[in-house]
Amino acid sequence: MTVHQVEPYNAEPPRSVLVDAVTPVSAFYSRNHGPVPAADEESWRLRVDGLVTTPLSLSPADLRERFPERTETATLQCAGNRRAGLVAVKDIPGEAPWGPTATATAAWTGVRLADVLAAAGVSDTATDVEFLGADVSPQADPPQEFGGSIPLRKAGMPEVLLAWAMNGEPLPPVHGAPLRVVVPGYIGARSVKWVHRVRVTDAPSPNFFQASTYRLLPPDAEVTATPGEGVELGLVAVNSDFLTPDDDAEVPAGPTGVTGYAFAGGDRTIVRVDVSADGGSTWTQAELGEQASTWAWRHWDATVDVPHGEVELLARAWDSSAALQPERPEQVWNPKGYVNNSWARLRLRGV
Amino acid sequence: MTVHQVEPYNAEPPRSVLVDAVTPVSAFYSRNHGPVPAADEESWRLRVDGLVTTPLSLSPADLRERFPERTETATLQCAGNRRAGLVAVKDIPGEAPWGPTATATAAWTGVRLADVLAAAGVSDTATDVEFLGADVSPQADPPQEFGGSIPLRKAGMPEVLLAWAMNGEPLPPVHGAPLRVVVPGYIGARSVKWVHRVRVTDAPSPNFFQASTYRLLPPDAEVTATPGEGVELGLVAVNSDFLTPDDDAEVPAGPTGVTGYAFAGGDRTIVRVDVSADGGSTWTQAELGEQASTWAWRHWDATVDVPHGEVELLARAWDSSAALQPERPEQVWNPKGYVNNSWARLRLRGV
Repeated sequence: MTVHQVEPYNAEPPRSVLVDAVTPVSAFYSRNHGPVPAADEESWRLRVDGLVTTPLSLSPADLRERFPERTETATLQCAGNRRAGLVAVKDIPGEAPWGPTATATAAWTGVRLADVLAAAGVSDTATDVEFLGADVSPQADPPQEFGGSIPLRKAGMPEVLLAWAMNGEPLPPVHGAPLRVVVPGYIGARSVKWVHRVRVTDAPSPNFFQASTYRLLPPDAEVTATPGEGVELGLVAVNSDFLTPDDDAEVPAGPTGVTGYAFAGGDRTIVRVDVSADGGSTWTQAELGEQASTWAWRHWDATVDVPHGEVELLARAWDSSAALQPERPEQVWNPKGYVNNSWARLRLRGV
Repeated sequence: MTVHQVEPYNAEPPRSVLVDAVTPVSAFYSRNHGPVPAADEESWRLRVDGLVTTPLSLSPADLRERFPERTETATLQCAGNRRAGLVAVKDIPGEAPWGPTATATAAWTGVRLADVLAAAGVSDTATDVEFLGADVSPQADPPQEFGGSIPLRKAGMPEVLLAWAMNGEPLPPVHGAPLRVVVPGYIGARSVKWVHRVRVTDAPSPNFFQASTYRLLPPDAEVTATPGEGVELGLVAVNSDFLTPDDDAEVPAGPTGVTGYAFAGGDRTIVRVDVSADGGSTWTQAELGEQASTWAWRHWDATVDVPHGEVELLARAWDSSAALQPERPEQVWNPKGYVNNSWARLRLRGV
């Protein structure tokens, strides 16, 4: 793993380990904002309150007993994924230069948030559902538990889980044991780990990590922590990158197989990926792999003709609304370095 | 109105009439694939069948009596909106060169499709809901009623209506009287007019206007009517254009107010619009108007400095996933000329 930070632990794997439909747990990126909290499954309680008729306090065992178990294969993607491409345009101080592997896919097992909310009885005035984790972040101002909210409409969808397992194994501590939220199609920050409270509300979360960060600021904005500045992120934008060969690899000149991933976000899927070896003058349509679920990425592969010497390959994905990634990182550069979904670029040397 | 075709009637209004949040019915674009069918409200029946436990046959009066009336403000947008920008890159024979006004917003009144489906009882194996209109299209191969389907997940959402009124008035014949579907966030083709049948199915519609057209073909594809080629359109991609001044207008050089619309599609909203008067070197963030509903466009306005002589203004919108429109029409050109969501361009002459 490339470790961007040891404490809190922030790390991403090499590109090549993401070639499988489901990512090994050991290779799943870690994005944390504070130390991993001590969590004892026996004493853990999930409080469900706010605009509900029956507040609940549920142990992990209660969740298993009271609600049907569900498994969803879903991709998570950090809002800072591919930030390195923005840093190359203009420095972004204080933010980790994530490469293209702050994203991964797991089969998540737990219960539907919708089932738990139905048991609590959601008030007619509710509009949002907030999650709070047990991890206290010293990076927040003031220091606070990591949290965030999603619209009630999304919270009621069957794909949103309170999960205790990934890929059939209990969640490791760093991925949120004993319980985490999984919000498919949304930025990873909304899939709150170590979740101990679900609060039904009538406004988006005032938590630092929603009201003050994970926001798209205009290019010329000062980076401050003033709540409400810029645009709240939530849904993931269509994105893609290369997985093999590695960036800066030497390969034999001539027809060369390349692979990558693409991810659409929301309830969209990937319908097309194009690859170019001539700066975008001509494009080859990649072969698309299986889409394991609406909520998962789609792998792709193509054969391109690599010339002798340096070449930059391009890749660009289209989602099911026929929306195409924007071309250049300069077009999407922003002061916190979120959502670099410009066309993927891979340098190769043909020998 | 600019009439692209008299029979079937296809027409769009001048830009400037779209500046209101809700479009006057008389200025709402018309996109038709066959003659307006004779429709008698007294004898009209909506059949609901397919994968349901209780097939229904409902008169307009039955719909009013059995289900709660709902009104949704929603923008419709033709998949061919802004095709003229693609035609300018490379000719698209046989398709009307729609400008930027094949889109409009109305307050639609009717009943929720979800309520009607609940009354019919949807089978567990259902995945899609097909609509058939009474308009027989001679353009289809073979000639057939206009139709199409949406995923069951969308059909169950509260914003999808079976509507009999727009802007508080009964639907005019050309807009689907006595009954039409309104699918907010989807291409206009799915909001089937003169709807007489709702069929619950386990596959997308085989109708010509879904299986053989309204599909995104690769740039080098031959235009054929082979079902299944290319990518089925459905959700609308983020898009925008200018409304005032008109294209090619003469304006006094100096600070000039410009206005436009932006539309996000699906359940996304518009969070930002940028305008440039120097080819994209610098951008001004536009002021955003109200978003009347999740399903409506958002107007915007900005002041730009118009130099003496010819200038091309640019506008580009961002949706709530932080997805940005792609830059150039060459990047999105396709043989049927759908989904031109490249940056908006407006030529002005400063005098």
